[in-house]
Amino acid sequence: MKRGLFLTFEGTEGVGKSTQLKNAAEMLESAGVPVLVTREPGGTPMAEAIRELLLAPREEPVHELTELLLMFAARAQHLHTRILPALAAGQWVLCDRFTDATFAYQGGGRGVSRDIIGQLETLVQGSVRPDHVILLDAPVAVGMARARHRGALDRFEQESVAFFERIRAAYHERAQAHPERYHRVDASAPLAEVSARVRELIQGFLRSNG
Amino acid sequence: MKRGLFLTFEGTEGVGKSTQLKNAAEMLESAGVPVLVTREPGGTPMAEAIRELLLAPREEPVHELTELLLMFAARAQHLHTRILPALAAGQWVLCDRFTDATFAYQGGGRGVSRDIIGQLETLVQGSVRPDHVILLDAPVAVGMARARHRGALDRFEQESVAFFERIRAAYHERAQAHPERYHRVDASAPLAEVSARVRELIQGFLRSNG
Repeated sequence: MKRGLFLTFEGTEGVGKSTQLKNAAEMLESAGVPVLVTREPGGTPMAEAIRELLLAPREEPVHELTELLLMFAARAQHLHTRILPALAAGQWVLCDRFTDATFAYQGGGRGVSRDIIGQLETLVQGSVRPDHVILLDAPVAVGMARARHRGALDRFEQESVAFFERIRAAYHERAQAHPERYHRVDASAPLAEVSARVRELIQGFLRSNG
Repeated sequence: MKRGLFLTFEGTEGVGKSTQLKNAAEMLESAGVPVLVTREPGGTPMAEAIRELLLAPREEPVHELTELLLMFAARAQHLHTRILPALAAGQWVLCDRFTDATFAYQGGGRGVSRDIIGQLETLVQGSVRPDHVILLDAPVAVGMARARHRGALDRFEQESVAFFERIRAAYHERAQAHPERYHRVDASAPLAEVSARVRELIQGFLRSNG
């Protein structure tokens, strides 16, 4: 059985990750590729319960290490009980956010040291990394305007513009440090263009995996 | 302001930790010492929510790293937002379980490497350790019989006798490795004797801290 590819979709709020994930999944399914569509934090009942803890607005200030460890607790459950078995069974895994988001949100956004995040990455993932990261990149104002149309804001969406600017900068840093797996897509372009660019990327992955 | 002492109560199920914690707290309060009585996992609303996730019996098998990271997520929140401020304000903190329980349950019980637990201990606690650990020690059968009288069993209490034997052995190991802070009390003795022995220990801590 040929191992599936592990693709992640990254970006700040409102850049269209869900739409492009669906776009990519439909294209792969049409090509006869078995697909698992999932998300982080979450992806199993227990990890989804951790997601609720993380996202719920609360009066108690959440310590940055608490947030970071909860992210990796959810990831350990999701990776070991769902993602790795799917990849081993030949499915392609399409995941809405993964560890790059932790480097961006907890690292860039909250200021947690990259070394600490890297230690937890190794602890939980060993050498497992996404094969390809599709970074949907748009100016923060564009995404926030879209996110605010979706209704009540979660604990992260309530953060300041400066917080999301730091996250976007951290994504850019990651993309520059890992050009072999990062694919930046201009998400401020018209939807049809963004979708075409994502399909082009998926075509490329299919060819290189052929 | 003199920093308070950080005392933890450890042991397997049903050894009488709650009773002895109350005993110690009453004695300290009578001596005019301000006391915070708390527990792990838990001790803040968010950490208590993590506790519920950890203890709830569930169909989904919980990965050992998920369990471990949830324990330390709850601990980061509890330590940094509740325990350390209380100690700094001169309160003595009496905590029902702490990191020694992680070495015993996740290390001894689940077989997680002590190195990994030690890394997370350093990440979350820096150099903070309990000043004294009161280990209530009894044969596993004695404690389990008591625990089973309390009603529905949580995810840990449902484990096998062998699991709790490994935990007890791990506690013994920890006590031998850290004789300067571990105080083993025979919890299979009659309650009055156990209580007297705990009061003796507390008297000693009061004198040495005087």
